[in-house]
Amino acid sequence: MKSKPLGPIPAGYGAIDGELAIGGRKASDLVDAAGGTPLFVYSREHLDARVKQLRDALPQRIGLNYAIKANPHPEVISHMLPLVDGFDIASSGELAMTQNAGIDPARVSFAGPGKRDDELEDAIGAGVTLNCESEGEAERSLAIGQRIGKAPRIAIRVNPEFELKGSGMKMGGGAKPFGVDANMVPGLARRVIGEGAEWRGLHIFTGSQALSADAIIEAQANVLELADKLASDTGETLPKLNMGGGFGIPYFPGDEPLDLAAVGKALHERVANLPATLADTDLCIELGRYLVGEAGVYLCRVIDRKVSYGTTYLVTDGGLHHQLAASGNFGTVVRRNYPVAIASRFDAEPEEVVNIVGCLCTPLDRLADLANLPKAGVGDLVAVFCAGAYGATASPENFLGHGPAKEVLV
Amino acid sequence: MKSKPLGPIPAGYGAIDGELAIGGRKASDLVDAAGGTPLFVYSREHLDARVKQLRDALPQRIGLNYAIKANPHPEVISHMLPLVDGFDIASSGELAMTQNAGIDPARVSFAGPGKRDDELEDAIGAGVTLNCESEGEAERSLAIGQRIGKAPRIAIRVNPEFELKGSGMKMGGGAKPFGVDANMVPGLARRVIGEGAEWRGLHIFTGSQALSADAIIEAQANVLELADKLASDTGETLPKLNMGGGFGIPYFPGDEPLDLAAVGKALHERVANLPATLADTDLCIELGRYLVGEAGVYLCRVIDRKVSYGTTYLVTDGGLHHQLAASGNFGTVVRRNYPVAIASRFDAEPEEVVNIVGCLCTPLDRLADLANLPKAGVGDLVAVFCAGAYGATASPENFLGHGPAKEVLV
Repeated sequence: MKSKPLGPIPAGYGAIDGELAIGGRKASDLVDAAGGTPLFVYSREHLDARVKQLRDALPQRIGLNYAIKANPHPEVISHMLPLVDGFDIASSGELAMTQNAGIDPARVSFAGPGKRDDELEDAIGAGVTLNCESEGEAERSLAIGQRIGKAPRIAIRVNPEFELKGSGMKMGGGAKPFGVDANMVPGLARRVIGEGAEWRGLHIFTGSQALSADAIIEAQANVLELADKLASDTGETLPKLNMGGGFGIPYFPGDEPLDLAAVGKALHERVANLPATLADTDLCIELGRYLVGEAGVYLCRVIDRKVSYGTTYLVTDGGLHHQLAASGNFGTVVRRNYPVAIASRFDAEPEEVVNIVGCLCTPLDRLADLANLPKAGVGDLVAVFCAGAYGATASPENFLGHGPAKEVLV
Repeated sequence: MKSKPLGPIPAGYGAIDGELAIGGRKASDLVDAAGGTPLFVYSREHLDARVKQLRDALPQRIGLNYAIKANPHPEVISHMLPLVDGFDIASSGELAMTQNAGIDPARVSFAGPGKRDDELEDAIGAGVTLNCESEGEAERSLAIGQRIGKAPRIAIRVNPEFELKGSGMKMGGGAKPFGVDANMVPGLARRVIGEGAEWRGLHIFTGSQALSADAIIEAQANVLELADKLASDTGETLPKLNMGGGFGIPYFPGDEPLDLAAVGKALHERVANLPATLADTDLCIELGRYLVGEAGVYLCRVIDRKVSYGTTYLVTDGGLHHQLAASGNFGTVVRRNYPVAIASRFDAEPEEVVNIVGCLCTPLDRLADLANLPKAGVGDLVAVFCAGAYGATASPENFLGHGPAKEVLV
C-alpha cells in the first residue's frame, strides 16, 4: 500500500533501549511515572536549547518574550521565567497564570482584540502593559485608569499595511480585527499620552509560523521602518517596540527549519543602524510556538489493531481532543501528517503502512494517514511530535467525555 | 460592501420587546440571570418540540436514542431522560454522566473505536451494552467479563459496504476504523454468543448530518437489508438493531431542513414489511445533533466596534473557544456563515455589513463574515444559532485562558 510522508521529527530526539527518549528518559518510563497515557511530555533540555540558539543568533539588544498562549502549563511558564525577558498574555486568565508564577507585571504585556472591562481593570491594576487594539479600547482603558486611580501602561498594537509573507496566519495587511490601522496610530498615541497614560510604545505583529528567513527579515525591516515613521509622526520617543514574532517550526513533509542564523545576521545589521527615533527603544521579539513547539511530545497508547478491507488501523487512547491541530482540523485546509512515530520501537525500521487514529467516534480523529512505520500492536506507544505548542489547550478536551491528557515537564 | 449570506435561523425563535426570545424569555434577561456572557442557552420547548415531531413522524415501533456526545450538559441529559428510549455513550466519562443522571444502564449502549480495558470493565460491570468495534475488542470484553464474573452485553457495530450519501461525516463504506467489516460479523457474532455474552444485536451507523430524505431512506433500507442478511448468516435472531441516525440540521445558507415526513413515511412502509429475522427485533435510531442542535443558542456580547481600512468589526467576548464549528475550523473545508443575529435587535432591519469576530488573538476566530445585520455597538448581544450540539464540549475552552462559557437550560 502506498504510504504518505510524515512530518520531520525535530532534532534532539533519540532512542534508549530502542525506545524514544525525552530528556534522557524512555517513553515507557515517563508514561509509568505519570500514571499512564495520553501524556504530553515537555522537555527542559529542548526549551533550554532553543533559547540558547536564539540568544546566540540574535543581537543582545533584542529582548525575548514568551507568548504563553502557546503553552500555559504552569511548569513550562516557571521554566521560562529565568530564560526570557518578557511574557505576552491574551486574557485575564493568562494574567492570573503569570501572577501565580510570580512574574513581575512590568515584564508582562496583554494583547487581544476583545478585552473586557474587567480584564482591562485587572491588567491596569496589576501594572501590566496593554497592547491597545482600538480607539475604543484606549478610551475604556483611560476611563478605568481614572476610576481606579492608576495610570494605565499603554502600548498600541499596530495593524500594518504589510504582512509576513508565507506565514501560516496572517495578522497584518489590509482590514483586520487586530490592532489600530497604522495611519491612525500617531493621533491615538498622542491622545493616550496626553491623557496621562504611561506610554509603552508599539506592538507590530505581522504573522506567525513562517519558515522563510527572507520573509521574516523583510517583515522585521518593514516593522522597524514603520516604527520609525510612527514615532516621528507621534513626536515622541518610543520606549518599547514589540516587533512580533512569526518564527515557524517544521510540521509537515518537506518543511525546512527556519534559517535562524540568516535572521540573526540581518537583525544585527539593522540594530547597528537604527534610526534616531529607535536609538533608546527597548526592542523585543515575541515567540510562542518557536520556543516550545518542538519541546513537546504527545504520547498515546495503541489499544486496538484492526484491519478493515485491507487497511490496517492502530486505534489509540489519544486523539483530537488533545491534539486537534495534528488531526488536521485547526487552521489547515488540506490534512497532512505531523511527525509521528512508534515511540516504543523508535529505532526500528518501517515495515508496514498503517493509519493511526484516535479513540473518538468521528472520522475527523486521525493522527497519521498511511504512515510507513515499524510494526506495532496493542500496548505500543505512539508519539506525535511538535506537540509543545497549541496542543493541550488548543484542543477540545471535553469532547466525548474522555477528559484531559496528563502533562509533565522533564 | 457586498455581504455574504447567513445560515437559516431555526424555526421557533421570535422577538419580545425587539429582542431575541428563547423559551419565552428575552436574551438580555437570560444573560442577566446567568451572570453574564458568553452563554449557551438550551431550550426545553425546542427539545420537546423536536422529539414530538419525531414521534409523530416515525413508526411507534422505532425507538429513539439520544447520543449524549452531542450535548452532555447534565440538565439536557436529565431533560431527555423521559423523552427518549435509549442513550448512546462514547467513553467512560459519558458513562458516568448517564449514571449521575440515574439512567438505567439497560437503556445505555457504548460505541467508540478505542475503548480502553478500564472503560470496558466499567461498562460491563454497569450492565451497559457494548457496541463492539473489532474482534480484538470482543476478545478483551469476553476476558474482562470472565474475570469480573459478569456476562458482557454485546452488540456488534457493523462497518457496512454502503454509506449515507451526502452526509457530512461518512462513517461507512470502505475501510474504516469504526465497526467490524460486514462480512466478518456473523462469525464474530457466533463467537461472542458461544462464549456466553448476552447477545444484543447490531449497530449499523452509516453517516451523519444528512439533509436529504432520499439519502436517509436509502440508507435505512440498506441497513434493514444488511441486518436481515447478517442475522440469517449468524443463525440467531436479532434482539436489537440500532439503525444509526444521520438526520441533519440546516447550518448554512441554502440548506433546507430534512423532510422528516418523507423519512417517516418510508420507514412506516419498511416496518410494515419487515423480514422474519427482524420481526421481534427492537429497532431504534440514534440521534444527537438532530435532537438538540437547533435547541441551543450561543450568546455573546459586543465589546468593541472598530473600523479597519473601511471594514467594520464587531469584537465579541465569545469565540471559537466555545463555538469552534461556527468559526469554520472543525470538519469543514470552506468557511460559511452559521445563522447569526444581533440578539438585542432581533426584529430590526439589516442596515450594515459587518464582520463578527471572537475575542481570541487569532484570525481563525470568526463568527460571521460580511454579515448584513442591524446596526450594533458595544453592549449589544450577538446570537449564534444551531449551538445546541457540538458546541461547548467540541471546542477548545482552555484556548488563550478565557475559560468555559456558561450554560443554562430554560
